[in-house]
Amino acid sequence: MTAFDLNILGCGSATSTLRHLPSSQILNVRGNLFMIDCGEGAQLEMRRMRLKFSRLNNIFISHLHGDHCFGLLGLISTMALQGKGGTLTVHIFKEGAELFGRMIDFFCRERPFDLKFNIIDTHKAVIYDDDAITVTSFPLTHRVPCVGFIFSEKPKLRHINAPACQEHNVPAHAMNSLRHGSDYVTPTGIVIPNNQLTTEPDAAISYAYCSDTKYSKRVINAVEGVDWIYHEATYGDENLKNAIKRYHSTARQAAMAAREAGAKRLILGHYSNRYNDESILLKQAQEEFPSTMLAMEGMTIDLNKL
Amino acid sequence: MTAFDLNILGCGSATSTLRHLPSSQILNVRGNLFMIDCGEGAQLEMRRMRLKFSRLNNIFISHLHGDHCFGLLGLISTMALQGKGGTLTVHIFKEGAELFGRMIDFFCRERPFDLKFNIIDTHKAVIYDDDAITVTSFPLTHRVPCVGFIFSEKPKLRHINAPACQEHNVPAHAMNSLRHGSDYVTPTGIVIPNNQLTTEPDAAISYAYCSDTKYSKRVINAVEGVDWIYHEATYGDENLKNAIKRYHSTARQAAMAAREAGAKRLILGHYSNRYNDESILLKQAQEEFPSTMLAMEGMTIDLNKL
Repeated sequence: MTAFDLNILGCGSATSTLRHLPSSQILNVRGNLFMIDCGEGAQLEMRRMRLKFSRLNNIFISHLHGDHCFGLLGLISTMALQGKGGTLTVHIFKEGAELFGRMIDFFCRERPFDLKFNIIDTHKAVIYDDDAITVTSFPLTHRVPCVGFIFSEKPKLRHINAPACQEHNVPAHAMNSLRHGSDYVTPTGIVIPNNQLTTEPDAAISYAYCSDTKYSKRVINAVEGVDWIYHEATYGDENLKNAIKRYHSTARQAAMAAREAGAKRLILGHYSNRYNDESILLKQAQEEFPSTMLAMEGMTIDLNKL
Repeated sequence: MTAFDLNILGCGSATSTLRHLPSSQILNVRGNLFMIDCGEGAQLEMRRMRLKFSRLNNIFISHLHGDHCFGLLGLISTMALQGKGGTLTVHIFKEGAELFGRMIDFFCRERPFDLKFNIIDTHKAVIYDDDAITVTSFPLTHRVPCVGFIFSEKPKLRHINAPACQEHNVPAHAMNSLRHGSDYVTPTGIVIPNNQLTTEPDAAISYAYCSDTKYSKRVINAVEGVDWIYHEATYGDENLKNAIKRYHSTARQAAMAAREAGAKRLILGHYSNRYNDESILLKQAQEEFPSTMLAMEGMTIDLNKL
């Protein structure tokens, strides 16, 4: 399974509406689920999208505004009732760990999994690493301490060239080494170079989550070269002043950031509740960066398809 | 306006489902909204039902299980963003006031209304009183401290008998006194008895909220003579053992309680997630107490219509 899918659970901003839920998404990396922010209602949207609680082991909270974390209590309670095992790690600022830790200890005392808080801060840092991905946090520019996250796939395995392997009688047990790039040595000692038996692996993809932030060179530098960027687009051009004042971005600024960072694709989200239709945001963004799309609740985006 | 309407925001139990939201309801008393319990998502359901945040000044929390209070943070944050004024009073146990108070002070520091916690306990007590209603708390029988609430309308005003008033030349400014039951004294000193100028007022209605609780004589005694009872009905007959063990009720027990308390109408709710269709719960309850109905999200029940 090589899934690298982004599931949008919520892409609204602070004031709830009937059109959008507050911020939350789930990145499915080869069957392991990584939640990014957890606004109220995230657990319900997980059910709606048939994403399994048992596969969720890491939650990343970008900052301590309610629309990015108020869903944690309900989600964790439900995971406890569902009998989730193993460890659930919440990557969060210190104050958040203290506040939510106290609530969870009171309301969710009995839980069949270990709950760990990984304390993060606004410095750039690798905060998670496994065989498939590395997660790096980096500072955003908001009214309160706030970070973005870059999810970088590890280099993928090479593809087996089946006819070539057959021709050289490569046994099944050697395939895994080939996928990792080793040459094959025949029983008689002849070295067959790896590139005669395999083809290039699929590209490793990277995804950056940038919400909430104003348009900022610091952010652009941090996400330089990332394939996919999710960037908040709270406002349209007509609300540029509000964006600056509230440390948010316009859709156009999000697109400028994506272009300047050399991204391949941009996803907009965190829409202000004043828009009943975000197509105006899409239009303004596409004037700067055509490969832009609008996030919507219930949407699954295959990040492998650039 | 003589509205006395019950709005069901959520009538599921602890494990969230796509069919039911966790516990929350709003009693509309002549335009003033009283929220009873506040599970996750209550604010969204308020929007869906077009209930105005500005009219909500009192929230009653029955006990400190997450499915009855996790919606408080999001709701209060949204009310702050919406610019609600005046005072919002949350009637809640002491530990709840401390835990939620700390969260709200952090996440919702700037709010244009006063937030007050009215600390309640499990003793029977009048916890709210105004011109239109009295709210009395009373102990339920659950695994943790838990109370029910009785909302009792104050006696209503008498109806003006317009032809009779016209005949006696009663001036407009005297009508309010008549409605309150005073006799009318003519300018020449003749006393016209009130009952010649008015007719009987509508009956004052009472409503009791009983969730979560096991079937219990103590609860039945507490709600004796109340017109409408909302009683939890987590399980069907086949799960009686679970009901007893978990300090919940079956639908049949809810109906027995309503009958024994002399209620006129019963509303069932707090359904276990194991039921995809609660008609079996309704059937079992109606065998004991025919005037039973199922609560459903989005439902408004006119409590004046007995």
